[in-house]
Amino acid sequence: MNSDSEKFLSKLIPESYARMGIESRRTHQNLIRQLMEQRKLPANGWPVKTIESFLSEVSLMDSNNFVDRCGVGEREGRVISDLVAKRHFGLSHGIGRSGDISAPQPKAAGSSLLSQIANSLVLDLLKAMGLPTTKAAVIIPCATGMSLMLCILALRRKRSTANYVLFPRIDQKSCVKSIVSAGLEPIIVEPTISGDELCTNIDLLKKNIEEYGSDNIVCVMSTTSCFAPRVNDNLIEISKLCAAMKIPHVVNNAYGLQCTKCLHQIEQATRIGRVDVFVQSTDKNLLVPVGGSIIAGIDRCFIQTVSSTYPGRGSSTPSIDVLITLLQIGKEGYLKLVAERKEIYIYLKEKLNEISMKYGEKLLKTTHNGISMAMTLNSFGSNVTEIGSMLYKRLVCGSRVVLCQGQKEVCGINYTAWGSHCNNYPHNYLTAAAALGTSKTDVDVFIQRLDKVLTKSRGQNGSRKEEVQTNE
Amino acid sequence: MNSDSEKFLSKLIPESYARMGIESRRTHQNLIRQLMEQRKLPANGWPVKTIESFLSEVSLMDSNNFVDRCGVGEREGRVISDLVAKRHFGLSHGIGRSGDISAPQPKAAGSSLLSQIANSLVLDLLKAMGLPTTKAAVIIPCATGMSLMLCILALRRKRSTANYVLFPRIDQKSCVKSIVSAGLEPIIVEPTISGDELCTNIDLLKKNIEEYGSDNIVCVMSTTSCFAPRVNDNLIEISKLCAAMKIPHVVNNAYGLQCTKCLHQIEQATRIGRVDVFVQSTDKNLLVPVGGSIIAGIDRCFIQTVSSTYPGRGSSTPSIDVLITLLQIGKEGYLKLVAERKEIYIYLKEKLNEISMKYGEKLLKTTHNGISMAMTLNSFGSNVTEIGSMLYKRLVCGSRVVLCQGQKEVCGINYTAWGSHCNNYPHNYLTAAAALGTSKTDVDVFIQRLDKVLTKSRGQNGSRKEEVQTNE
Amino acid sequence: MNSDSEKFLSKLIPESYARMGIESRRTHQNLIRQLMEQRKLPANGWPVKTIESFLSEVSLMDSNNFVDRCGVGEREGRVISDLVAKRHFGLSHGIGRSGDISAPQPKAAGSSLLSQIANSLVLDLLKAMGLPTTKAAVIIPCATGMSLMLCILALRRKRSTANYVLFPRIDQKSCVKSIVSAGLEPIIVEPTISGDELCTNIDLLKKNIEEYGSDNIVCVMSTTSCFAPRVNDNLIEISKLCAAMKIPHVVNNAYGLQCTKCLHQIEQATRIGRVDVFVQSTDKNLLVPVGGSIIAGIDRCFIQTVSSTYPGRGSSTPSIDVLITLLQIGKEGYLKLVAERKEIYIYLKEKLNEISMKYGEKLLKTTHNGISMAMTLNSFGSNVTEIGSMLYKRLVCGSRVVLCQGQKEVCGINYTAWGSHCNNYPHNYLTAAAALGTSKTDVDVFIQRLDKVLTKSRGQNGSRKEEVQTNE
Amino acid sequence: MNSDSEKFLSKLIPESYARMGIESRRTHQNLIRQLMEQRKLPANGWPVKTIESFLSEVSLMDSNNFVDRCGVGEREGRVISDLVAKRHFGLSHGIGRSGDISAPQPKAAGSSLLSQIANSLVLDLLKAMGLPTTKAAVIIPCATGMSLMLCILALRRKRSTANYVLFPRIDQKSCVKSIVSAGLEPIIVEPTISGDELCTNIDLLKKNIEEYGSDNIVCVMSTTSCFAPRVNDNLIEISKLCAAMKIPHVVNNAYGLQCTKCLHQIEQATRIGRVDVFVQSTDKNLLVPVGGSIIAGIDRCFIQTVSSTYPGRGSSTPSIDVLITLLQIGKEGYLKLVAERKEIYIYLKEKLNEISMKYGEKLLKTTHNGISMAMTLNSFGSNVTEIGSMLYKRLVCGSRVVLCQGQKEVCGINYTAWGSHCNNYPHNYLTAAAALGTSKTDVDVFIQRLDKVLTKSRGQNGSRKEEVQTNE
Repeated sequence: MNSDSEKFLSKLIPESYARMGIESRRTHQNLIRQLMEQRKLPANGWPVKTIESFLSEVSLMDSNNFVDRCGVGEREGRVISDLVAKRHFGLSHGIGRSGDISAPQPKAAGSSLLSQIANSLVLDLLKAMGLPTTKAAVIIPCATGMSLMLCILALRRKRSTANYVLFPRIDQKSCVKSIVSAGLEPIIVEPTISGDELCTNIDLLKKNIEEYGSDNIVCVMSTTSCFAPRVNDNLIEISKLCAAMKIPHVVNNAYGLQCTKCLHQIEQATRIGRVDVFVQSTDKNLLVPVGGSIIAGIDRCFIQTVSSTYPGRGSSTPSIDVLITLLQIGKEGYLKLVAERKEIYIYLKEKLNEISMKYGEKLLKTTHNGISMAMTLNSFGSNVTEIGSMLYKRLVCGSRVVLCQGQKEVCGINYTAWGSHCNNYPHNYLTAAAALGTSKTDVDVFIQRLDKVLTKSRGQNGSRKEEVQTNE
Repeated sequence: MNSDSEKFLSKLIPESYARMGIESRRTHQNLIRQLMEQRKLPANGWPVKTIESFLSEVSLMDSNNFVDRCGVGEREGRVISDLVAKRHFGLSHGIGRSGDISAPQPKAAGSSLLSQIANSLVLDLLKAMGLPTTKAAVIIPCATGMSLMLCILALRRKRSTANYVLFPRIDQKSCVKSIVSAGLEPIIVEPTISGDELCTNIDLLKKNIEEYGSDNIVCVMSTTSCFAPRVNDNLIEISKLCAAMKIPHVVNNAYGLQCTKCLHQIEQATRIGRVDVFVQSTDKNLLVPVGGSIIAGIDRCFIQTVSSTYPGRGSSTPSIDVLITLLQIGKEGYLKLVAERKEIYIYLKEKLNEISMKYGEKLLKTTHNGISMAMTLNSFGSNVTEIGSMLYKRLVCGSRVVLCQGQKEVCGINYTAWGSHCNNYPHNYLTAAAALGTSKTDVDVFIQRLDKVLTKSRGQNGSRKEEVQTNE
Repeated sequence: MNSDSEKFLSKLIPESYARMGIESRRTHQNLIRQLMEQRKLPANGWPVKTIESFLSEVSLMDSNNFVDRCGVGEREGRVISDLVAKRHFGLSHGIGRSGDISAPQPKAAGSSLLSQIANSLVLDLLKAMGLPTTKAAVIIPCATGMSLMLCILALRRKRSTANYVLFPRIDQKSCVKSIVSAGLEPIIVEPTISGDELCTNIDLLKKNIEEYGSDNIVCVMSTTSCFAPRVNDNLIEISKLCAAMKIPHVVNNAYGLQCTKCLHQIEQATRIGRVDVFVQSTDKNLLVPVGGSIIAGIDRCFIQTVSSTYPGRGSSTPSIDVLITLLQIGKEGYLKLVAERKEIYIYLKEKLNEISMKYGEKLLKTTHNGISMAMTLNSFGSNVTEIGSMLYKRLVCGSRVVLCQGQKEVCGINYTAWGSHCNNYPHNYLTAAAALGTSKTDVDVFIQRLDKVLTKSRGQNGSRKEEVQTNE
Repeated sequence: MNSDSEKFLSKLIPESYARMGIESRRTHQNLIRQLMEQRKLPANGWPVKTIESFLSEVSLMDSNNFVDRCGVGEREGRVISDLVAKRHFGLSHGIGRSGDISAPQPKAAGSSLLSQIANSLVLDLLKAMGLPTTKAAVIIPCATGMSLMLCILALRRKRSTANYVLFPRIDQKSCVKSIVSAGLEPIIVEPTISGDELCTNIDLLKKNIEEYGSDNIVCVMSTTSCFAPRVNDNLIEISKLCAAMKIPHVVNNAYGLQCTKCLHQIEQATRIGRVDVFVQSTDKNLLVPVGGSIIAGIDRCFIQTVSSTYPGRGSSTPSIDVLITLLQIGKEGYLKLVAERKEIYIYLKEKLNEISMKYGEKLLKTTHNGISMAMTLNSFGSNVTEIGSMLYKRLVCGSRVVLCQGQKEVCGINYTAWGSHCNNYPHNYLTAAAALGTSKTDVDVFIQRLDKVLTKSRGQNGSRKEEVQTNE
C-alpha cells in the first residue's frame, strides 16, 4: 500500500483511525528507509513483521515475480513447489553472476539488494565488534573450509609457482582439506607447549619459511578460535613475519567473531603486520543454519578477487538468514549475546574447575583461548574413550574427549595423536566450550551429567566399548 | 519500502536493474490501489505475493503492531504464541465493536479495513453472480444457522408480540434450531409432491398465515439450496405472499451462491415480492474453512440492524479467508468455478442415471434442484441402511442414503420420516451433489465405488449392521 | 514416520545416530501420548515443533485430507487457496454438528479431536486456577456477548414465559445487547456507592425480584471483571438469592479468568448458592486473537444444553488458537503470567497513585477490583474530554476517560451517565488496567505519557476538541 | 501420534470416526515407509501435508531439537531467529562432515537422512530419465561451476603434474572460471561450423591432446546443454578419445537433465568411452532456487572422492528443496514436465520460424540442440544491440542477442567474439530456449513482444542506446 492507496482509506474507515494506522506503517517504513540509506546494522532489532514485510517487498523486485513477464531462458527462477517457494520468500535467483558471487544480477534486483545489504550489515558488525579497519566483507554461500580454499586459490593465481601453505597445526579436517583440495601441500608447523597451552611456534614457522622459500609459499594459514588446550595462534608475530617476508596471510577465524579476544588480535595483526583475509562461519557466529561464511579484510580489491573466484551463482539462503537475524537482534542484541557469552565462559570455567578437582583432575590453564577449555582425564585410564560417548548418550553435545596418542592418516598426511593438535601433549582431556548461545542451563546440565558419567566411569573396568564417535 | 527508500536503491544495485524492480513493485501496488479505490472484486486473481504483502501492510495498522505503543487496557490484542500470531497475519483484534459486528474499531484500523473490503468484495460478487439489486452484504463470523437466528432475532425486536416462524419443511437441524433457539415456534409447512419433486406448498402456507395471523408471525423462512428430491422453495410466490401479508421473509440460501438457479430466484423474488434478507455460508460457496456466513439484502438499513444484533466483537478469520480467496481467484476465477460446477452437475446426472438404470432404479427427476440429485434405492430392501456407511468406508463423502420412514424428535418437534423433508415420500433414495469444487474425478470415483457397493449390497442378506452414521 | 519406517533408518545412517534420533522423536511422541491419555494441561509447555507436528498429524484425520477420497456432498471441506488452507493447518470442517457445537463430526475426526482436547485443557486450567468444582467447559466460536446470549436463550427455553433479565448495571454495550438481542428485557439494577467503589445493590436486586416475580425472570446476569470504580459483583449474595428464589444465575466473567479474585468468588458462589454458568473471553484471558469464549459450569448437562443451542457448525480457529497457546505455555507458564500480572497490578497502582497526587487528584480506592483502577480527573474541568484522545494519539491504548454526566440511549434504554455504570458517581476519572500480558514497560511508558498529557492539558484552555473516540 | 496415542482416540471421539482418521494417517505413513524402504522416487507425487509431516518428524531427529539436550560445543545448531528456524524446518546442522559433504553427522541424524534420501531420489530420477548405468549421484550445495571445479580439483590430485584442461569452447564465464580458479590452464578448442551448428572439433581436440601430452592434461571438460547455434558436444567421440588416451572426462550437463537428447548422449558415451563425472544444476533442471548442483557418474568411488573434496559442512537447503520438489511431483510429474517441454520446444521453433520469416531473417537450423534455438538478426544493422534490452524492458527474460564481433578478456584469456562460442560465426542472432517450466503463454507473449520490438527497431536509426545489459 503506498500513499496513493492511503488516500482511499478514509472511505472505508474513520479518518482518525486511518491516520494512526498510516502513522504506524510509516514507522516501519522509516526503519527500511534508514537501512537503505545507511546500510548499517540498526541499533535495536526490528519487529519481525517489518522484516517479513521488507523481504516480501524486495522479493517483488526479482523478475520471477514480475506480474507480466515472460521467460524464454534456461534459468528463469521458476520454482514448482509452493512449499519451496515460500521458504525462500519467493526469491529464487540466488546471488551473484557467473563472474562474481557478489555482483548484482539483472534478473534479480531484489536478491541482489538483499545480498548487498547483508554484506553491509556484516561489515558494520565486524567494525562494531572491534575490527574498525576492515574495509570489505562478503557472505559466501559455502562452508568456512571452502571459503578458505577460495582464498588460497585466489592467492595462488597471483603466485602461480608457489605450492606450499604454511599451517600452524590444528587438527580439523576441513582446514587441512582446504589446502589439499586446492592442490597444494600443507607444511604443518607443530606448536610449542607453553604451560598447559599449545601455542604458535614462531621460530619453527620462520625456519620453515626459510627452508621452503617465501616465493614457494602461497600463504600462511593461521587459526584463532580452536579447541583448548590449543590457543589462538600468535597472529601478531605471524603477521609481522608475513609482512617482512611478503607472504600472504589467511586467518581462519572460524567462530572467532563472537570473541573479542580473537578480533582484537586480528585488528592488531592487520595494523602491525600483514593479514590478507580472515574467514569466519556464519552459523557459529551468527546463530543461523550451516551454509555460509564471511570473508573479510582491509583490502577491498582482494576480497573482490576472492569473491570473483567462485565460479557461478550461489544460494542466497545464507545471506538472507544472516540478514533476518541481524535485523531481528540489532547491534545491541548482538553485543548482549557476546556479553552473555563472556559470563557463561567464566561460569563454565568455574564449574569445570570444581568438577575437575572433585575427581582429582585439573582444569588446564589456557587463558589465551577465550571460548574453549579443557580438563584433564588422566586418572580414568582406558575408560577415557568411553566418556565421550557416554556423554553423548546423555544428550550432551559438543564436549570432546581427546586421547593424545596413535597415528592417523588424514588427507594423505600422517599425523601423530590426531585430534590433539600436537605430537606429544602430556594429558588426555575433555573439552567444553562457552560459545554464542550457550545458556547457564546448558552448563548446569552438562556439569551434572558429566559428574554422573565420571562417577560411573570411575566405577567401571572399561570393558564396555562405545559405538558413537562424537569427535569429528 | 516506499519511494523514500527507493531512491537509495541505485547506491546498492545498478540503476537499470533497480528501475525494473521498482516498476514491478508498482504493478503490485497498483492492484492494491485499485482495490482500495474501487472496492470491487478484481477481474483476475492477484499473485499470492501481492495478497500476502497487502495483509502484511494492513496488519501494521492495528494497534497491537504499533512499534512504540503501550497498552493498559483489558483487551490489547496481545498474542503470546508466535505460531498463533503468524496464522492470523499479526491481526488479533477481530472485527466489529461491541455495538456492531460491522463497525470499525479505533484500535484496529487494519482489521477494520480488511473486514470492510471483504464485505465489499462479497457484495460485488453477489451482484456479478446475478443479484444486481443487492445493496448490502456482511460477513458474519458465525455459522449460517446462527446468522439465520440473528436475522430472526432482529426481526423479532420489531414484531415483539409475534412468536411463530413459518417454515417450509427442510430436515436440517440447524435450520429448525435457528428458530427454536431464538425462542420462537416453527410452523412447519409440509411440501407437496409434484412428480418426483418436493415443492413448496403455497396453499398450505397461505392457510397457515391465515390461521396464525400475520401479526403473530415473525417471518417466513424459506430455503433455496437443499438435498434432492426437495427443490428450491418457490421464492417468487412466497415473496409475493409476504409482501401482500406484510410478513418478513428470510431466505436460507445456504449453498445457493454457487448456483445461478438459486440466485435468479432470489433476484426475481426481491423485485416482485418481499425478501428481507438472504443468508449463505462462506465455506460452501467460497471454498474456505467453516466459520462464517454472509447476510445480504436490498435494505442496507436492515442488514445493518442484523449485524448490530451480534453482541460483541467477532473473529476476523472468516473475513480474511474470504478476502484472500476472492483476491486470489478474482471474478473470472469464480465464474469459471461456477461454470465448471454446472458441467459437473450434468456429468454427475448422466452417470448417476446410468448406474441407477443398471440396478433397475431410477434417477429422480428434480430439475428445480440445480445442485443435488437422487436415485431411488427401492430394490435394496433392508440393505439400504448399510449402503451409506459402506460408501463412507470407501472414502465416499457427502452421499446420503435416506429411508422415508420412522418418527423422530428434533428440537422438541415430532417428525415423521426425518431426513426426507416430507411425511410420505414414496421412495428410499441416495443423494449426491455437484457442489463447487467437485471434480470429474470425484464423480468417476464415486460412481465406481457406488457400483461396487450396490453390487455387494445386492448380494447380501443385510445381516451386517453399520456403525458409521453419515447423515447429519 | 512410524516404527515400520524406523527400521530402515540404519540403511541410510549409522545405527547409533539413528537411535538417538528415534529416541528424540519418542520424547515428542510421549508428550502427545500423555495429552491423549490424560487430557490435562501439561505442566510445562511443549516445544513448538511438537505442537506443529501434532497439528499436522491430526489434520490428516480429517476427510478433506484423505488421500483417496471422493466428495459428492455440498460441504466437503474444500479450500481453494493454499494460503488459507495453510493458516488452518489443513483443517477446514470447523467444529460441531448442526445439532451441537461440541459434538464430533464424522467427516472430521481430527478437528473433533482438537476441539475436545482444547475443551479438556481449558477445563483443567479452570480447575487449576481456583475453580475445582467446575465440571464442564466448552470453547464457543463466538464473542463473550454472543455466548451470554446463547446462555440466556438456553435458559429461556426452560422458562418460556419469563421475559426479564436482572442485570446489575455495567455499561458495556455487548452485555446489554446479549439480553436485548435475545428478545428479553433487561432490568437494570443501579449499584450502590460504597467508599469509592460501585457495588452490587443486593437490596435493590431483591426488591426487583419481588416486583417482577421470580417466574418472570429468565436469570440474573452478574459481572466479575469490570472497569473501576465498579467492582466485581457480589456473587456470593447474588447466588444465595438466586438459589433461594430459584432463579438461574449467569456470570459474565469476561476477563476474570486471569484474576484469582474473580475466580475465588465464582467458586464460593457456586458452592454456597446458585451459578448456572460463567462465561469468559478467550482473547483477553488466554492471549489469543478475538473470536472465542468459554462457557463453563458445574452442571455438565446445562453446559451441553447451551452448546446445543448454537445452530450449526462453527469455526475451529478459537479452539485451535487456545490449544496451541496452552500447549506452548503449559500450566506453569500460565500461572507465571498470572503471578506477573498481580505484580504489575501492584506496580501500576503505585505509579498511578504517585501521578494522581502530583496533579492533586487521587487514586480511587477500589480494592474489590483486581484488574482495573482509576484516578480522578476532577481538576481538569472541560479539558477532561480531550485527555483520552491525547493519550491515544501518543499510542496509549486501553486507558479510558469517563465523564459522569449526560443521557444516552443504548439498545433502546435511556441511561444517565452512560459509561460510568452509575447515575451519580461523584468524580470524573481515568481508568487503566493491569491485564494479562501487560508489562512493566507498558506501565512506565503509560505513566510517562500520561504525565505529559496531564501537564499539557492543565496548560490548555480546552478549546481544541478531539476526534478520536477511545471509549468503546 | 503413534499407535500408543491412537488407542486413546476413542475416548475422545466415536470409534468409527477415529478408525477412518487412523486409516488416513496410515496411508500417509505408508508413503513414508515406502520411501525409507526403497529410496526410490515415488511414481506419484505426495500430498504436501505428507511432505511437511515427514520434514517435521525428521527434524526432531537432529540434536538441536532434542528436548532434554545440553550443548557445550562451538557448533550446536543454535538458531536465534524463529523466522530463520522455521524456513529451515528446524534443521540447522547442514549436511556432511568436515571430511565429506555426503557423510552423515552424529549430531544431525535427521539432516543426514534427508540428504541421503535426496541423493537417492536424484539417482533414481537420473536412471528413469535415460541414464540407467549411473551408480552414484550427490547433491552438492554449490553452483554447477563450483562443482565442476571440485571435480577438476579431485582429478588433479591424482594427476598432480598435469596443468591443462581441454575445453571445447563455450562462452560462459563460470565454465572457464571453474578451470582457472582451480589454478589450471584451459586449452580452448574452437568449434567447427557445420551448417548453422557449432560442433565439437574432434580433430582439433585430438591434435591438442597430442600437442600438450595426455599426462599433462587433467581432463577434457565437455558441455551438453548450451545456447544455440552451439550444439551439444560430441560426447561419444570425446569419450572414445578420452578412453583411448586415458584422459579423464568431465561433462558439464548444466541444464541437460531435462533433455533426453543430452542424457542419451551421456549414457552412450559412458557405455562406449570414458565419462568420469557429469554435473548438472538443481535449479534449472528441478525448478528449485539457485544453490545446488548434482555430480553423478558410474564410478561410485570417484563421486565419493569428489564429494570428499569439499572442505567442511554445507547448506542442506539445496537437498531439502530437491527432496520436497521430487516428492511433490513424483516420477510421473517430472516425466510430464519433460514431455511438455518437448512440445513447447516444437511450438517455440514453429513460432520463431514464422516471425523470423516475417522479418526476412531465418531460424538457424540447430537440430542437435534440443533446448535453445536462434534466429538471425542480420538485417537490423546497428540496432541489434538494442533489441536485447528492449525485450528486457518489456519483461522478456532469457532471450539473448549476440553480436559475433569484438575482443574481450575473460578470466585472463583473450576471446574473439565472446558470447558467440566461436571466432567467426557468420550471423548476428537472438536466442530463445524452451526450458523446463516454459509455458505456451511464455512463448506467445514472447513472440508478440518480439514482434513489436523488431518492428520498432526496424523503424529506428539506432541512435538511442540501451543501458540494461542482459547477456551475462
